[in-house]
Amino acid sequence: MKNRVYNFSSGPAVMPEPVLEKAAKEMLNYAGSGMSVMEMSHRSAVYDSIIKEAEKLLRELMNIPDEYAVLFLQGGASLQFAMLPMNLACGSGKVDIVHTGMWSGRALAELKKLAKPHVVASSEDKTFTYIPELTADMFDPEADYVHVCWNNTIYGTKYSELPPCETPLVADMSSCILSEPVDVKRFGCIFAGAQKNLGPAGLTIVIIRRDLTGKAEGLPTMLDYVTHIKNASLYNTPPTYAIYMCKLVLEWLKDSGGVEAMAEINRRKAKAFYDFLDASNMFRATVRGRDRSIMNIPFVTGDDALNAKFIAEADAAGFVNLKGHRSVGGMRASIYNAMPEEGVLKLIEFMEAFEKKEAR
Amino acid sequence: MKNRVYNFSSGPAVMPEPVLEKAAKEMLNYAGSGMSVMEMSHRSAVYDSIIKEAEKLLRELMNIPDEYAVLFLQGGASLQFAMLPMNLACGSGKVDIVHTGMWSGRALAELKKLAKPHVVASSEDKTFTYIPELTADMFDPEADYVHVCWNNTIYGTKYSELPPCETPLVADMSSCILSEPVDVKRFGCIFAGAQKNLGPAGLTIVIIRRDLTGKAEGLPTMLDYVTHIKNASLYNTPPTYAIYMCKLVLEWLKDSGGVEAMAEINRRKAKAFYDFLDASNMFRATVRGRDRSIMNIPFVTGDDALNAKFIAEADAAGFVNLKGHRSVGGMRASIYNAMPEEGVLKLIEFMEAFEKKEAR
Repeated sequence: MKNRVYNFSSGPAVMPEPVLEKAAKEMLNYAGSGMSVMEMSHRSAVYDSIIKEAEKLLRELMNIPDEYAVLFLQGGASLQFAMLPMNLACGSGKVDIVHTGMWSGRALAELKKLAKPHVVASSEDKTFTYIPELTADMFDPEADYVHVCWNNTIYGTKYSELPPCETPLVADMSSCILSEPVDVKRFGCIFAGAQKNLGPAGLTIVIIRRDLTGKAEGLPTMLDYVTHIKNASLYNTPPTYAIYMCKLVLEWLKDSGGVEAMAEINRRKAKAFYDFLDASNMFRATVRGRDRSIMNIPFVTGDDALNAKFIAEADAAGFVNLKGHRSVGGMRASIYNAMPEEGVLKLIEFMEAFEKKEAR
Repeated sequence: MKNRVYNFSSGPAVMPEPVLEKAAKEMLNYAGSGMSVMEMSHRSAVYDSIIKEAEKLLRELMNIPDEYAVLFLQGGASLQFAMLPMNLACGSGKVDIVHTGMWSGRALAELKKLAKPHVVASSEDKTFTYIPELTADMFDPEADYVHVCWNNTIYGTKYSELPPCETPLVADMSSCILSEPVDVKRFGCIFAGAQKNLGPAGLTIVIIRRDLTGKAEGLPTMLDYVTHIKNASLYNTPPTYAIYMCKLVLEWLKDSGGVEAMAEINRRKAKAFYDFLDASNMFRATVRGRDRSIMNIPFVTGDDALNAKFIAEADAAGFVNLKGHRSVGGMRASIYNAMPEEGVLKLIEFMEAFEKKEAR
């Protein structure tokens, strides 16, 4: 049997090994309860302490003010693309959106059904390899909110500064939440699918300013944020085990020094990788300058056959899931919080050796 | 540390111990992949074999014809209460519903928002302790479908025969799926939250006749069954680990002889428990006759203080989660597929001893 690999999957993605070990150990009997977390009533005292602790840890790690609700939902970012306009586009019905890739594209498609979207700017002209310059005059002051995808998993870009808008900012942080500190107070809503930096797929975190909610009428109960705020995410059965795994990930993050400490490691990992790519004669990064993501790094050789050869040899050597997204090709290394620095350095070593070998 | 308890929770509920053991063993390295199932891309070959196998097993165990799609969704039965009318109430917009408890009540609340519901019959007059008699003339032939809750978790009732309706029958089988054989062809749609007989919370199974879908226009993408049918439940990231656990549960069920064999054990377990209740001078079942559920058995002593004493002593003896639902009080033993026969027999023994002791 293969040992553990270095898993560069874009999501679901690598999880901290100590978290998996703890989960395995507690699988049949959590904390002396005589049962698995999977088997617990979501209304039991023992489970209540798990979900409360998960929320407390997230609030602490992200410094989330009380005027924001923290919700544990289902359906991924994809369902949020519909829930956001259903709940928030209740004034003018207008929504500003910056189009930076496939995920803002999917959000835009839902906005077209449920609101009056306005594309503030787009980087589609260069295959989404940059974040557009944004100036205050580009935004509609009447918009109910502005939608941005803070880190673009597929294209490897991320925002380096806040868009200069006055209307509430709603950010999809699925692939960067907890990777660097963010000032939550500057956002109306931050949401994230868990399957990259938070835990297993099937859990969606929504951090939302309470005063933005409760404006829509007649929504299906499950699609109204108010339902979940009022019931502390327990209106119906939440994804209990995924929330428990998220709690373990948050504990691990806290033990690792918190978001600030993690950001330092993340920046170091990304810098080492970009430095190598920028110096390489074979590999190059597809994103330049300050828009580079520190979570997802797409790169190419410029030769499809060589890309394929590299991906196959890397896989055989235990560096897996380096193939780029089907929509862009090439390679991509996703180096989320749980990817150890050692994994990145070993991948660089492997790439150096590959380059040397192939250049012969 | 306590050993494993007998867990009579109504859901999330007891899971088969061999399933939990296998999950624990595979937690860090699934089938030599070098990673946890939680860490796998949902688009990888290894994960694809897991979700495909889960579907294949469910089709085999329930004998699901090809003209039905099998979907792995999120949001629980609660989200289905909205998705069903959004997708299916597209002809007359009328929906017939039989009101048999809290869950049909919640479905009715969504129907009021999204369709024109007609309550065919209700058992609210006797606290939902029975399934109403249904005759063909009670149903509206113009209704787009009929909604029923096949097994009522809280009140412990279940249907013993098909409602005599001509319109498509939509059944919430969250708390009874795979407990007894059902003839899928007689239903337009069967849906179930996984957290009782299928696996962990956060996964919803929808079995739907393909020709009923695709009639609604402009639905949010995630709320349209067509999206999930076209993409084989992989439009966005599904709850990958919950699906894997569901696959393990289905394998266990198949190894245990399938649904027919499980039904025999379930009927034996329920009969033993009801026989005891019917003979007892202290405990009695709240549901009579053929409407008795074989999954959820509510019972009372008629004395709140005695109920509380019983629940506390049972808990201390390792028979946990016997408290009835907060809306009805008393006790309830949920004895899903994964509750071993031994657990039921030991609970009966404990109750006999309790009765003897208290009667002194």
